[in-house]
Amino acid sequence: MDKVNVEQKLSLFSDHWSPKIVAELNGQAVKLVKIAGEFVWHHHDNEDELFYVIKGQLRMEFRDQCVLLNPGEFIVVPRGVEHRPVAEQEVHLILFEPVETLNTGNVSDERTRADLDRI
Amino acid sequence: MDKVNVEQKLSLFSDHWSPKIVAELNGQAVKLVKIAGEFVWHHHDNEDELFYVIKGQLRMEFRDQCVLLNPGEFIVVPRGVEHRPVAEQEVHLILFEPVETLNTGNVSDERTRADLDRI
Repeated sequence: MDKVNVEQKLSLFSDHWSPKIVAELNGQAVKLVKIAGEFVWHHHDNEDELFYVIKGQLRMEFRDQCVLLNPGEFIVVPRGVEHRPVAEQEVHLILFEPVETLNTGNVSDERTRADLDRI
Repeated sequence: MDKVNVEQKLSLFSDHWSPKIVAELNGQAVKLVKIAGEFVWHHHDNEDELFYVIKGQLRMEFRDQCVLLNPGEFIVVPRGVEHRPVAEQEVHLILFEPVETLNTGNVSDERTRADLDRI
């Protein structure tokens, strides 16, 4: 029965836009990711997605508004809603979503990650 | 599209062992709870349960070991595994589990909470 220390897990990687799975439960995964810059506009057809900020400031853009999130804050992006995560400076995030959720949703580009590492 | 500030939500209540729902996604709920003292030994037949520590030190007891968790650490208790959360001093937690998960699992006592408040 192992615990997970989020900071320790975050120290294990430095690449951006490449989520790592750190735990699974009830068909959902806890993923950690570091991001910097602008991601691609996308949505997820069947999955809601939670973004919890550990470090930095996340700007979650929607087509009609944007939401700024600081450490200790999270947002749930409902399925079907187009969004674009933006990090002017590096941001560390916990993601909570189904194991099979693709980071780029309905879009495929060079940052799409299918088989995520487990750390 | 609202964000959730965990500290702000925690400031809205002070009772112990009474989880509040702050978000839902994919049939799962994000719950906040404050605990102090020893809970009841219990398990959940069909649900895995995540405990993420925001404040204080959580001692998660199992029948054959115990795990100490500090802020920024979490543990997933798999379905079927008997456990007992203990907080020598007040602990603030994020729980992640199915919406319908009962806090006392297979046990019913005076701390069982069925219809959780949404805050």
